[in-house]
Amino acid sequence: MTIIYEKVAVIGMGLIGASIALSIRRGGLVKEIVGSDCSSQVGSVVGRLNLTDRFESDAAIAVKDADLVIMAVPVGAVGSLAKQIIPSLKRGAVLTDTGSTKTSIIRDVAPYLRDDISWLPSHPLAGTEHSGPSAGFESLFDGRYWIVLPLEVEEATVVKFEKFITSLGSVTERMSVEYHDKVLALTSHLPHLIAYTIVGTAVDLETQLKNDVIRFSASGFRDFTRIASSDPVMWRDIFLNNDVAVLEMLQRFSEDLSFLQRAIRWQEGDKLEEFFFRTREIRRSIIDAGQG
Amino acid sequence: MTIIYEKVAVIGMGLIGASIALSIRRGGLVKEIVGSDCSSQVGSVVGRLNLTDRFESDAAIAVKDADLVIMAVPVGAVGSLAKQIIPSLKRGAVLTDTGSTKTSIIRDVAPYLRDDISWLPSHPLAGTEHSGPSAGFESLFDGRYWIVLPLEVEEATVVKFEKFITSLGSVTERMSVEYHDKVLALTSHLPHLIAYTIVGTAVDLETQLKNDVIRFSASGFRDFTRIASSDPVMWRDIFLNNDVAVLEMLQRFSEDLSFLQRAIRWQEGDKLEEFFFRTREIRRSIIDAGQG
Repeated sequence: MTIIYEKVAVIGMGLIGASIALSIRRGGLVKEIVGSDCSSQVGSVVGRLNLTDRFESDAAIAVKDADLVIMAVPVGAVGSLAKQIIPSLKRGAVLTDTGSTKTSIIRDVAPYLRDDISWLPSHPLAGTEHSGPSAGFESLFDGRYWIVLPLEVEEATVVKFEKFITSLGSVTERMSVEYHDKVLALTSHLPHLIAYTIVGTAVDLETQLKNDVIRFSASGFRDFTRIASSDPVMWRDIFLNNDVAVLEMLQRFSEDLSFLQRAIRWQEGDKLEEFFFRTREIRRSIIDAGQG
Repeated sequence: MTIIYEKVAVIGMGLIGASIALSIRRGGLVKEIVGSDCSSQVGSVVGRLNLTDRFESDAAIAVKDADLVIMAVPVGAVGSLAKQIIPSLKRGAVLTDTGSTKTSIIRDVAPYLRDDISWLPSHPLAGTEHSGPSAGFESLFDGRYWIVLPLEVEEATVVKFEKFITSLGSVTERMSVEYHDKVLALTSHLPHLIAYTIVGTAVDLETQLKNDVIRFSASGFRDFTRIASSDPVMWRDIFLNNDVAVLEMLQRFSEDLSFLQRAIRWQEGDKLEEFFFRTREIRRSIIDAGQG
């Protein structure tokens, strides 16, 4: 495999950062990977698992001389991280991130940008309910979309970056900022919010019933608990930062739920059946799209 | 394996009925399995896959001389099926069902009961999003709970039935009717209703956005589409027949969702984070309970 960037710095060594490092290693894509994380506990795991060539607890030191800097931290922390590291970036460096709420990240990074670096927000549509560096694995991005949101960056820079993430196994796609946030609100953020809610509803039941809900959890609920075991801080940040799109989708969802609730109360079986037949179709489309 | 019942009739050869037949076969548990289904299409699949020793399109003929009769049809159809077959049951036969809404099923079967048969409602907590006889598989019940709801039946009859379903691979548990319906409302019915709703919300989006929601469906939404591809008629019946418990749980869910919605609108990150940390715990309990 050709070397695409000589030196890459990954700031934030959670599930995504660790998987990027492992995936880079698998492909032999760079000369040096430097990892950084504000948690010394994470740092020691990164060292023990030998995830990167070097680990720097100070992100500003980690990014020195890097050709590509990837910010893989919770979306609420991207702004302050950008403030911290951008002055240390080398001229011509490419700066990207992996966050799920692009409007807020672009707003938060903007004040600290320099004319001589390329800011290229991106978002890999990949993850699991597990978190932390030991949850990372090299095939996480294989066949998954990695969205690129080119702002005012030269085409050659974008193409080179796309070549890099393709080498990590992903499929690239360009998208506008506002559109990205809407698509993610429905495909990812709202499902997580709802999963958190229903599991929360169970947590508040009287003890006996709660215990039996856990014990006899059938497939529907079990899937929800898996989704609702995702990293709490990461998801707090996502909801706070994609609030406009999430609240819009939530409004639509609530209307649809009220419709079904009313159909149940009034025993309108035809309305339920018709609704369920329509939703069944979309599953087939997703399987056909190769994302099932 | 000892023969527990000489002859078993399975009425309704969908996912559950077919899996019961295959699981009986695996264990060599009975002398003869007779299958029945009101759909001739299903009948031909049952014949082609050789799922039962005999297939009878007329359920009343299928149950003749059966020691155990299992009604594995959508919950809304159990009453009329009971009416059709109970006069043909042999004296001393055990009648059970596999439905998810016990209050309604017991109400619907009651008018047709005879003193010389044993009516023993039950419910295997197992299934997939697939339906129909070709979706059945012999290990569906392995390690899954199969709830038994003994009404006015002799203990020896219950124990024998429990021995039978244990031989199918399942773990038995007794439960009262009302309690069963509450537990299922939260663990299964409400999650399905919500999954149907969010997928329905996506179906109603403008075409371009809908297509991209399908194309870029991330893990949360993908899981929901799988749940929401379950059999529409079966689920219509479940919601109509467990309406009281579902509406009660839905009310609690809606309150919790409003709480999170308000926290997002007012940017109250601490409330979100605290909620998400609590829900994370329940996942561990489920994994510890061996149902993950």
